[in-house]
Amino acid sequence: MPNIRILFGKRVRKLRQALGISQEELAFSSNLHRTYISDIERGTRNVSLDNIYKIAVALDVSPKDLFDF
Amino acid sequence: MPNIRILFGKRVRKLRQALGISQEELAFSSNLHRTYISDIERGTRNVSLDNIYKIAVALDVSPKDLFDF
Repeated sequence: MPNIRILFGKRVRKLRQALGISQEELAFSSNLHRTYISDIERGTRNVSLDNIYKIAVALDVSPKDLFDF
Repeated sequence: MPNIRILFGKRVRKLRQALGISQEELAFSSNLHRTYISDIERGTRNVSLDNIYKIAVALDVSPKDLFDF
């Protein structure tokens, strides 16, 4: 399996774009910094459970859906 | 949704026990410390993607399966 950070980042981007929201909007609704969201989507962050949960809630999916790859 | 760390920990424990392996054996095969595995299962660790992947490989499941709760 390719790098999990990259796969996770691509999945977040795909779900965000499917909602039609910007990185800024996702950052605001997940209470995370915009550059952190950008880093996550580029696969450069080793995201932890708490932030995985915040992103899932903001994207209105279950944490499991963020690993659908 | 109750605390993701607790849910994740319970899921790891369930999958480990289904394989009939000890925390020591999971720690060895995932290249993580035994006390870290114990902490994870008790829901006290904010586990990151890289370690989520190591645990998934060691339990012979996909990362997604670790979030099946």
